[in-house]
Amino acid sequence: MYNQSELKEIVDQTLVNLSYNTEAGKLIDPVKYILSLGGKRIRPVMALMACNLFCDNISDAILPAAGLEVFHNFTLVHDDIMDQASVRRGFSTVHHKWDTNQAILSGDVMAFIANDCFLQTPGKNLLRVFMVFNKAAIEVCVGQQLDMNYEKAAVVTQDEYLRMIEMKTAALMAASFRIGTMIGGGNDKDSDLLFEFGRNLGLAFQIQDDLLDIWGDTKIFGKKAGGDIVTDKKTFPLIKALELASGDSKKQLQSLYNNKDLDPEIKIKQVISIYDELNIREVTETLANDFFDKAFSLLQKVGVDDNRKKELTDLASSLIGRNR
Amino acid sequence: MYNQSELKEIVDQTLVNLSYNTEAGKLIDPVKYILSLGGKRIRPVMALMACNLFCDNISDAILPAAGLEVFHNFTLVHDDIMDQASVRRGFSTVHHKWDTNQAILSGDVMAFIANDCFLQTPGKNLLRVFMVFNKAAIEVCVGQQLDMNYEKAAVVTQDEYLRMIEMKTAALMAASFRIGTMIGGGNDKDSDLLFEFGRNLGLAFQIQDDLLDIWGDTKIFGKKAGGDIVTDKKTFPLIKALELASGDSKKQLQSLYNNKDLDPEIKIKQVISIYDELNIREVTETLANDFFDKAFSLLQKVGVDDNRKKELTDLASSLIGRNR
Repeated sequence: MYNQSELKEIVDQTLVNLSYNTEAGKLIDPVKYILSLGGKRIRPVMALMACNLFCDNISDAILPAAGLEVFHNFTLVHDDIMDQASVRRGFSTVHHKWDTNQAILSGDVMAFIANDCFLQTPGKNLLRVFMVFNKAAIEVCVGQQLDMNYEKAAVVTQDEYLRMIEMKTAALMAASFRIGTMIGGGNDKDSDLLFEFGRNLGLAFQIQDDLLDIWGDTKIFGKKAGGDIVTDKKTFPLIKALELASGDSKKQLQSLYNNKDLDPEIKIKQVISIYDELNIREVTETLANDFFDKAFSLLQKVGVDDNRKKELTDLASSLIGRNR
Repeated sequence: MYNQSELKEIVDQTLVNLSYNTEAGKLIDPVKYILSLGGKRIRPVMALMACNLFCDNISDAILPAAGLEVFHNFTLVHDDIMDQASVRRGFSTVHHKWDTNQAILSGDVMAFIANDCFLQTPGKNLLRVFMVFNKAAIEVCVGQQLDMNYEKAAVVTQDEYLRMIEMKTAALMAASFRIGTMIGGGNDKDSDLLFEFGRNLGLAFQIQDDLLDIWGDTKIFGKKAGGDIVTDKKTFPLIKALELASGDSKKQLQSLYNNKDLDPEIKIKQVISIYDELNIREVTETLANDFFDKAFSLLQKVGVDDNRKKELTDLASSLIGRNR
């Protein structure tokens, strides 16, 4: 069995060795740049771990796994334009380092580089793996659309929020597990179980991510706490707080939301104090834990020995920052 | 044998009936909009005609053909952002009617809708058809990159220009013919011949397009003459004129190029008068005709009866506005 860091290394090497068309260097430079910014390569590692559950030889899954990472980075390049983000993983975003046109076009070519990776899925798995990927790719676009819609919406319900992160974040993780399972030779039942495992893990991960933005340890989390509050992002804590607040708290929260004039530090402090009053941290943790527990109960049903599931359990736990 | 208008009708119907994910209407509205603006559906018609050369039943080629059109429109949506174009086929461009973010995202989803179409290529053709498409898709991105590079370049050579339009325009037409041939059951030799036919036809078409922008009949051509001159687009006539001009003509052309202060009508008139002095129209026509003749000599070698080639000959001739 491969462990997480071995798989990450395989993915990193594969991404470096992708043979790009080099005729238009300017087109490919941003592709190499965004892929070099690191990250945990979670999606390809998920696919490879799922494959490795059923098969010791994971080589057939490596290029499709790389395709998942290339696709994910394609969405980051375009999302960063849409969000006007200037920093990604501590470095300039592509449209900030080059320009918007370059980020659109170099992003576009990544979609087809991802296709190239999936087209190298061997034999009988090609069609079904590509279909799983492509369905998820469309869902990620739908998720980004919902996210954009909700930015402008006065009220977003918990269900709407969950549907949005299911599409934007969880769908690709679920697909990653299914793709790895298919290539590894898992049966349809295990494929469904691992797909649902990935979906629930993805939901837990995103909710946890919202939580860490507010209450996370900056050193561990790697970005400044409260960023989502300053940018008025419709995170789960905000949505829940707007739902639960009443009277003065509600008025205060509404006046803080979309207030661009207030000093960021003061805004963060005041919003968090309302969250604390409403027990938002606990509510958020409970929801993340519910999805996390659901994920694990699904993983237990997968038809392979428990000792083969250890790496996957470790990955999932580290993703959520919980021991299990 | 199907004729051009029958095939266009099949493509139009297929595009209307594509079953989109409708959960995020805002994502799909621009997709439906751009696909409803019409156009001649040249690329899918090319694919279907190539298929029909070898096979009376073209049904297997219909969805991949539609995929070519969806992909082409994806490039239009994103190119229009990059070119800051506000009008496309007499209607607002997507980013102008909605906004840039919507055009990026709705464009993106079209890349995956195109994938969905190609994934429905039946049986043994799936992999090779998808590979032909995907190679062309990457080349179209490279072509757009070269076009963007050349916008800022002081000098562009004829060879560089031809390479750019080969990637940006001819590659997808060549791929369309190859895809149709493969699905129709043509052999490798005919596939290569029709690919080269498409490539040469695409080059002729683009050079002719540059020519018509200057000397075309506005009523037939459907857009205002001289648009490329006003926007300082590096077309073949401009590149050739900059190469051939000397002395005062060269100085005058250089002072007209990138001159944003001059009245557009006067600029067009003065540039055309230099072109006329240098016989640019004849030089351009000769080059387009050379590629057109090359295309036809390749078509003649394709191993099917001449009477089966009639629709293709008519399409190619109408594309170039020449009788043959």
